[in-house]
Amino acid sequence: MQNFQFFNPTKIIFGKGQIASLPNEIPKGSRVLVTFGGGSIKKNGVYTQVMNALQGYEVSEFGGIEPNPTYETLMLAVDIVKAEGIDFLLAVGGGSVIDGTKFIAAAAVYEGEPWEILTRHGAGIREALPFGSVLTLPATGSEMNMGSVVTRQATKDKLAFLHPAVFPRFSILDPETTYTLPPRQIGNGIVDAFTHIMEQYMTVRTGTDVQDRLSEGLLLSLIHEGPKALKDPQNYEARATLMWAATLALNGLIGAGVPQDWATHMVGHEITALHGLDHAQTLAIVLPAMLTVRLKEKSPKLVQYAERVWGITSGTDEEKALASIQKTREFFESVGVKTHLSDYNLSPDSIPGLLKQLQRHQMISLGENQSVTLEVSQRVLEASI
Amino acid sequence: MQNFQFFNPTKIIFGKGQIASLPNEIPKGSRVLVTFGGGSIKKNGVYTQVMNALQGYEVSEFGGIEPNPTYETLMLAVDIVKAEGIDFLLAVGGGSVIDGTKFIAAAAVYEGEPWEILTRHGAGIREALPFGSVLTLPATGSEMNMGSVVTRQATKDKLAFLHPAVFPRFSILDPETTYTLPPRQIGNGIVDAFTHIMEQYMTVRTGTDVQDRLSEGLLLSLIHEGPKALKDPQNYEARATLMWAATLALNGLIGAGVPQDWATHMVGHEITALHGLDHAQTLAIVLPAMLTVRLKEKSPKLVQYAERVWGITSGTDEEKALASIQKTREFFESVGVKTHLSDYNLSPDSIPGLLKQLQRHQMISLGENQSVTLEVSQRVLEASI
Repeated sequence: MQNFQFFNPTKIIFGKGQIASLPNEIPKGSRVLVTFGGGSIKKNGVYTQVMNALQGYEVSEFGGIEPNPTYETLMLAVDIVKAEGIDFLLAVGGGSVIDGTKFIAAAAVYEGEPWEILTRHGAGIREALPFGSVLTLPATGSEMNMGSVVTRQATKDKLAFLHPAVFPRFSILDPETTYTLPPRQIGNGIVDAFTHIMEQYMTVRTGTDVQDRLSEGLLLSLIHEGPKALKDPQNYEARATLMWAATLALNGLIGAGVPQDWATHMVGHEITALHGLDHAQTLAIVLPAMLTVRLKEKSPKLVQYAERVWGITSGTDEEKALASIQKTREFFESVGVKTHLSDYNLSPDSIPGLLKQLQRHQMISLGENQSVTLEVSQRVLEASI
Repeated sequence: MQNFQFFNPTKIIFGKGQIASLPNEIPKGSRVLVTFGGGSIKKNGVYTQVMNALQGYEVSEFGGIEPNPTYETLMLAVDIVKAEGIDFLLAVGGGSVIDGTKFIAAAAVYEGEPWEILTRHGAGIREALPFGSVLTLPATGSEMNMGSVVTRQATKDKLAFLHPAVFPRFSILDPETTYTLPPRQIGNGIVDAFTHIMEQYMTVRTGTDVQDRLSEGLLLSLIHEGPKALKDPQNYEARATLMWAATLALNGLIGAGVPQDWATHMVGHEITALHGLDHAQTLAIVLPAMLTVRLKEKSPKLVQYAERVWGITSGTDEEKALASIQKTREFFESVGVKTHLSDYNLSPDSIPGLLKQLQRHQMISLGENQSVTLEVSQRVLEASI
């Protein structure tokens, strides 16, 4: 086990009807900016619940934060924060809204050009405005971590930053807010959470029995309860399980003290940036191909995964490993997320452009062993056609 | 799944050599009181590591905190805190030292009679002195939670309190500090952590798949790695696994949103208070008997436990449940902790006194269903002879 630090001060408020507890969490007298996305919260009742809870506060709104939030849009919100003297942000939505709000919180008090927050991956941050979230889409884990991914529209750069100042003060997770989500977003959420776990788990065996078993537990929860959540939107227990599993998939716990991979995410980000696919779609495409191309490197852990998660106990190690990858692919397809580039009308002609972007972003030695060179990424993309 | 709040701001600093990082965590200029137990830290090098790291601080010491720390002893430390203007506490030891330090931290700034902290179970606390811990004994989880148990010697009352003000600011967990522990303390730690998990897991099935699988993962880690930690004191990975599993067993995570039991602990506390057995010894005695007496009430979860944790797949539900209890008993015995009152020279004559104490402390409707009346406790104690 590697040495590690684990620190996560976000307060989780989980369950039915919990949006009403907002006044317990936001300091009295705050000037609040409510941030949100395309407006679905105005149709499903969440907006009304939030505004009812915020009676007595001075409240402004900023809607229109995109999936894969853009620097250009978020900077408009930064201007509002400064102009109106906002001192508390409330993100209402999914991971894109929360990621975007983390950037707004940091950029509003940043000394220097805010794009630097991304290019320096958070290193220049000293403080951020306080903020909380009301999560409506189980997927990214942004509601309980200090990470954020932002895209610069002008240059198609999709970059991440991390800083403890952007942990949400609180996040409210009411599974009932997810009842009206389209199936595509639930499927995406399952794949996103699953892949987050795999990026921290499917590496090398290093005496991390606790972290391994917690990861395996979360994977099993997604495998068993995810399809129920998809099939029956009002199955509270399944929706609650999906929501809590997705949060725990990326709150730092299962990744503490273990080697991590993240090559799948880095390659996937370029597909989204250039071709606009959903984040989870890119993960569903890249992960099975990544595991196949790197089968030998990951063999001992793939065998453990095959046995403990998928119950595959017969065959050679290679057969078990391959069978576990096939099971993973089938699981993604079963929740409605296709796993080949060609399913999204992308041909092999797209590969050189993706490799060029990886090179431009220095993504030339990815993965837990820094073994994912551009040449390996090329083979991964070729295997994902 | 029940509605829940999860909040845990303790920073964990885990790994080899981490005691040296103390100056990063304790504010410069603090007047520090180092609290500890019977002095083993002076023999195993931990005291020296701590004092070296604290060079530059004004440091006082308070040793002699007992296993099952007493109000009488802790109040002596409160006097020192007040007399010397101490503003930061550092607990160096196991759960008893940390529990005791939580009480000192709260009592030093408490308005009113400090014993009230226990009788009101923390309800009267408004603030506490900040403190951190250096953990040397994996067992109780006190290093990452807001609970504490203190005994009043004069009356043999063993009572608990909870308050967010007594979360440690940080806890340093270096598995190497456990290398010199006697086997009895490692065995006790395994049983203590195992029983903490069971008190939160072995209740009723309520659609808490994530929490169940996390609990099962921690139980499996203890079952697989605990004996290795016992057999080979310098097996770093096994000691690290035990240490992290014991912390996660009682940091609020697996208990969030689930019904909890704790009847085993309440009955066990009285055995310690009246007869001085180690805390873990009382748990090893009471838990198997408690599960046997309440077999019907807990049957569905016992079957799940039998299948997922012990791999028992044949037999009727009752046979599976009974087999899982037997496995639990054998596991406790295998790590050197005996499971019958008679193993500790306690006869049936001890039972009336224990029941009287339970009654005096209002422990008359314990467990997740409040079904553990005094009559049930009597049957449990009779089954544990």
